[in-house]
Amino acid sequence: MLPLLAPMSEVAGRMAPQAGAHCLENAAGGMGILLGGVPGVLPARVVILGGGVAGTNAAQIAIGLGADVTVVDRSLDVLRRHVATFGSRVKTAHGTRELIGDLVTGADLVISTVLVPGAAAPKLITRQMVAAMKTGSVIVDVAIDQGGAAETSRATTHSDPTYVVDGVVHYCVANMPGGVARTSTYALNNATLPFVLALADKGWKQALADDPHLANGLNVHAGRLTNAAVAEALRESFTSPAQALAA
Amino acid sequence: MLPLLAPMSEVAGRMAPQAGAHCLENAAGGMGILLGGVPGVLPARVVILGGGVAGTNAAQIAIGLGADVTVVDRSLDVLRRHVATFGSRVKTAHGTRELIGDLVTGADLVISTVLVPGAAAPKLITRQMVAAMKTGSVIVDVAIDQGGAAETSRATTHSDPTYVVDGVVHYCVANMPGGVARTSTYALNNATLPFVLALADKGWKQALADDPHLANGLNVHAGRLTNAAVAEALRESFTSPAQALAA
Amino acid sequence: MLPLLAPMSEVAGRMAPQAGAHCLENAAGGMGILLGGVPGVLPARVVILGGGVAGTNAAQIAIGLGADVTVVDRSLDVLRRHVATFGSRVKTAHGTRELIGDLVTGADLVISTVLVPGAAAPKLITRQMVAAMKTGSVIVDVAIDQGGAAETSRATTHSDPTYVVDGVVHYCVANMPGGVARTSTYALNNATLPFVLALADKGWKQALADDPHLANGLNVHAGRLTNAAVAEALRESFTSPAQALAA
Amino acid sequence: MLPLLAPMSEVAGRMAPQAGAHCLENAAGGMGILLGGVPGVLPARVVILGGGVAGTNAAQIAIGLGADVTVVDRSLDVLRRHVATFGSRVKTAHGTRELIGDLVTGADLVISTVLVPGAAAPKLITRQMVAAMKTGSVIVDVAIDQGGAAETSRATTHSDPTYVVDGVVHYCVANMPGGVARTSTYALNNATLPFVLALADKGWKQALADDPHLANGLNVHAGRLTNAAVAEALRESFTSPAQALAA
Amino acid sequence: MLPLLAPMSEVAGRMAPQAGAHCLENAAGGMGILLGGVPGVLPARVVILGGGVAGTNAAQIAIGLGADVTVVDRSLDVLRRHVATFGSRVKTAHGTRELIGDLVTGADLVISTVLVPGAAAPKLITRQMVAAMKTGSVIVDVAIDQGGAAETSRATTHSDPTYVVDGVVHYCVANMPGGVARTSTYALNNATLPFVLALADKGWKQALADDPHLANGLNVHAGRLTNAAVAEALRESFTSPAQALAA
Amino acid sequence: MLPLLAPMSEVAGRMAPQAGAHCLENAAGGMGILLGGVPGVLPARVVILGGGVAGTNAAQIAIGLGADVTVVDRSLDVLRRHVATFGSRVKTAHGTRELIGDLVTGADLVISTVLVPGAAAPKLITRQMVAAMKTGSVIVDVAIDQGGAAETSRATTHSDPTYVVDGVVHYCVANMPGGVARTSTYALNNATLPFVLALADKGWKQALADDPHLANGLNVHAGRLTNAAVAEALRESFTSPAQALAA
Repeated sequence: MLPLLAPMSEVAGRMAPQAGAHCLENAAGGMGILLGGVPGVLPARVVILGGGVAGTNAAQIAIGLGADVTVVDRSLDVLRRHVATFGSRVKTAHGTRELIGDLVTGADLVISTVLVPGAAAPKLITRQMVAAMKTGSVIVDVAIDQGGAAETSRATTHSDPTYVVDGVVHYCVANMPGGVARTSTYALNNATLPFVLALADKGWKQALADDPHLANGLNVHAGRLTNAAVAEALRESFTSPAQALAA
Repeated sequence: MLPLLAPMSEVAGRMAPQAGAHCLENAAGGMGILLGGVPGVLPARVVILGGGVAGTNAAQIAIGLGADVTVVDRSLDVLRRHVATFGSRVKTAHGTRELIGDLVTGADLVISTVLVPGAAAPKLITRQMVAAMKTGSVIVDVAIDQGGAAETSRATTHSDPTYVVDGVVHYCVANMPGGVARTSTYALNNATLPFVLALADKGWKQALADDPHLANGLNVHAGRLTNAAVAEALRESFTSPAQALAA
Repeated sequence: MLPLLAPMSEVAGRMAPQAGAHCLENAAGGMGILLGGVPGVLPARVVILGGGVAGTNAAQIAIGLGADVTVVDRSLDVLRRHVATFGSRVKTAHGTRELIGDLVTGADLVISTVLVPGAAAPKLITRQMVAAMKTGSVIVDVAIDQGGAAETSRATTHSDPTYVVDGVVHYCVANMPGGVARTSTYALNNATLPFVLALADKGWKQALADDPHLANGLNVHAGRLTNAAVAEALRESFTSPAQALAA
Repeated sequence: MLPLLAPMSEVAGRMAPQAGAHCLENAAGGMGILLGGVPGVLPARVVILGGGVAGTNAAQIAIGLGADVTVVDRSLDVLRRHVATFGSRVKTAHGTRELIGDLVTGADLVISTVLVPGAAAPKLITRQMVAAMKTGSVIVDVAIDQGGAAETSRATTHSDPTYVVDGVVHYCVANMPGGVARTSTYALNNATLPFVLALADKGWKQALADDPHLANGLNVHAGRLTNAAVAEALRESFTSPAQALAA
Repeated sequence: MLPLLAPMSEVAGRMAPQAGAHCLENAAGGMGILLGGVPGVLPARVVILGGGVAGTNAAQIAIGLGADVTVVDRSLDVLRRHVATFGSRVKTAHGTRELIGDLVTGADLVISTVLVPGAAAPKLITRQMVAAMKTGSVIVDVAIDQGGAAETSRATTHSDPTYVVDGVVHYCVANMPGGVARTSTYALNNATLPFVLALADKGWKQALADDPHLANGLNVHAGRLTNAAVAEALRESFTSPAQALAA
Repeated sequence: MLPLLAPMSEVAGRMAPQAGAHCLENAAGGMGILLGGVPGVLPARVVILGGGVAGTNAAQIAIGLGADVTVVDRSLDVLRRHVATFGSRVKTAHGTRELIGDLVTGADLVISTVLVPGAAAPKLITRQMVAAMKTGSVIVDVAIDQGGAAETSRATTHSDPTYVVDGVVHYCVANMPGGVARTSTYALNNATLPFVLALADKGWKQALADDPHLANGLNVHAGRLTNAAVAEALRESFTSPAQALAA
């Protein structure tokens, strides 16, 4: 659990269908469709890869916009939670590579919330899948700052958010929550305030002693590396936060 | 408006997805799927042709069973009513012949509630569409006693309700409400009782004078034909019910 | 009833909250908020003026996006229909001028779907109200091609959709459905096809004789003006379509 | 987790909006409004402080009555659960003192389910806030038997449930579940029966050994204090239940 | 259609379950149950007689309070509308006298919204049914000012709203909307304002000429009775409003 | 947690109301009713014994079919989860033996998802209860392969799924998921694939070392019994999987 990141995933997840809907408009290069259609015109097919915090929030908004939504995840428990929350308004699929290919190439909007760290690793959305997608369809790659899920993804900015590959509009803004700065600021403050208050009220030493979340955030103390991963990366010796603080 | 038929359309419409779900089981010859799937397994695709009384009731139950439901109708107002009632849980399509073909051949379960009177007329579900449907898929032809909507439909009974054409299970029971006789009896009584009471309380003459629904039911009186369609079919002269009663 | 315009109102109504949500992003000049907030951050206040076809569709999408939605209309029956459809997810207000002022100046997003034809007429959203709105709030004036409801509204285009007055972003694209051209084309075809088929199958004379909707569309025939409003505007004599056709 | 108290919190939480709605009637001293308004009249604003068991049940009923409901809590996870359960029918706010002040003074009905033990501690609803509330508004202080959340709260009874301070009706019945004694009795029996059966079937010693919930209920055994808090309060020595039983 | 009465029926309908819930509390003489129960305790059975404006609003609130709700009406179309609005959260019954007896005697709360004008006429809820109801159950007779539906009903007031017959609490306040005077005032103003404006803007003669609703309200003009029912009751001659105004 | 059995419980749970609805048809020996009734005809009463995975899925489908659904369980937390998921569309009861008797004998369809291993143990649904049930009512005993919950239950097959005792149709197919083989296969694959991949990728030893779920599946290794229950049943000595693997 990363308590400070969850609000940012909520914001990004809720923005993703909104960004996708905008990109599907003709003026943004999309195929010119409404996510929800209208009575008599079928809704758009939205495929959400990853059903975690961002994926759940994306599903909620995409359903609210009236789209035909399918959520893909490797965890059955995640998909069960979606069914419990959204009932028959969501479809769920356990993602094998072949099924993902079928869903992605049949989609009007793909929202990916999964992260595939490491450049060499095979990506969920391959270049071939992108080439097989419909002209004017859209990919929103929410986790682009962690590498993104599409082989064709590269980070963009709010001032120039999209580019087109093989006729598919890519929205890969690296810092999506920055686009709704006021909402994000409040959300982040809500999550950080308890920690800030603890630091201010108790002093940092006591606060870290009382809360393992805070202690985990200590990287260096009194000349000693107290973060195992950093120590290993730098080939330096590691001291546990508790030891370092006690010293 | 046919006030006495509406309850039977409600019963038949609600039975249709239930019958279709049963036919999709292996033991009934179907492809062995649940309409709603389970978390991680996509739901079945149900296409409902005709969104009137029977179609609305069929949609309600199919949605309740968790299926992926698309309703097709030629009236936009009918489809708008579906969207108002079911929201994003239903998809609606304005039915051109080509779109119907695509939807039917992609469906796991087709429920037709439209009637196409006249044998020579082209039917909505052609033999070619049936041949292109998946093996083990199902057609429930609700309006079979009005001719049915599929070229491959012929009336069956509750004791032997289905047959298979080109691998597609056909459920074409001519009197579907008879299968839930108790519910149908109450439903029919509810609709007929006011008319029966009017006839009993007022006498038939006054009752017919007071209620155009009843008057429309008068076919012959005092040797005169009082039903225009019957008179025309028999090439006899027609007398309006009002005139015949006044005579 | 204008059967060919209803689909365009549906499209524009559904686009309006989507456009509003986009305009509320920082990059579009808005105050940087999500319509639905996130858990712990209050949602945006959306006020929809006019609860007809466009207003109903706007409400559906705004609710779907998680906003705090209030619909204002002068017809109680219209508001009752909203309550029946959306339940406690919508708030309804019978619009007096004072209440509208309070709601508009407290809103983050105002969607107007009412039309006020005639330049001289007082508009629902006055310049004073706009000046009192929050910096970074948004007005989407759906009926701009009929004159718009805000004194500060002037028509814009999809390529340059917004401008700012008193810190309030105005989205006043004159042809909103053109932004989702594919959806709009299908929606319009669905509505027009029956009329086109009638003209093609029966010839125009018979088609107009059979359908008052089509007959109402006849403006000139055999040198005679058959549209009463046009005749009056040009101070010419008027001939009813039926007479003109019979001549 | 206090398994025997949860049912009482459920009952009190569900009663709170019902009591509040009654107090808002003119005859009870309220401002004479319906929680849900009617079509064309805006609903009442209900603010629920605390989103735990009582708060969740209060939210459910307040939403069911058609009110405009905002839930305030310090835990984002609690608010996330509300959003998952109630969707866009609830608004959630992370409670800073300033925001609580704004919400409380703007509310028609405040339901507090938080408890602030200790008289000296600052209370969530200050006397100033109460003074700033609308005349005829209502406070239901559910946790009054734990001290209550308003500085103006003092315990009342079912036979004389309310009093007025600064024009604000206070409902502070100390034993709310006693007002629906039959429901509460069944609810309590459901929760206690398994413990009663364990005591009866196994004898009390074995039952306490098998179930830490029961063991925690042991306060005195063989002349020794086995409840740490009691021991500390009485400045007596403490023996753990396990030790005391083994002795 | 009585456009000025509909808002009062909405208010009374929404108040009825709230009043009923209050009466079911022990302090009000009821059996001490919550309408919605709690998890593990079954909800109360609410039977609503009459599914019109008041009945629909009563059903909405009773469902919102979590009760087990059955609506009884003689019109199938009315019941169909309930099912379309409330889905499986409401049960509907076509009311024969026997079925009504079973439902009433099994109910915890009966809300009657039907009116039976004329003292001699047999009432829907007979004295025998009341005697067979459970001790501590409640009847809310909404249409008491039109005579009420129970043989045991007699009008009460907001200051002394209930009395007990055969152990059954009767809430028969003659002017229910007066209990939430602010909401009712706004609701009534919303409905009357257009008529008031028409009278003020056009003068009463033109306003009556333009609007049959207003013309129907004219009872006497220039010494002539213009209300047919009044004329008949007084055995005076009747002049139509149009004639009287033209004279 | 039994991760491989959960999908089968989901499938069986969802099939149960579908099977029950079919059995209630006249042709299957039932009383001839629709689970959901129609407007004006009350829905059927469905009682679900056990609210776990199968019970939750059964409730979802029974609600979707429009039935009047009551779920009985001994765990209040299980019932709370039902209320959170299904709101007022489900009724919940904490099951004492007497209440179960009342509910079962009043039901049209009883779905039991609880298992009572051991033939001698008293069963939840006694022979007396069955005798008191209505003629043509139905019992679906989902956990028949674990012994079933009714004294009158005995395992049947998909080819001959039902039999009648005391007028009550019993559906006790031992392998319900086998009836929708395609859905069940996908569901099972989804659950087993991660384990299969782990075994294939890591080799079985490493896979068992990494995953206690897999290790728990080891019953015999190198001549030693590594399953405690089996060892005890056979009165053989037991070696823990970890020890056996390390040896």
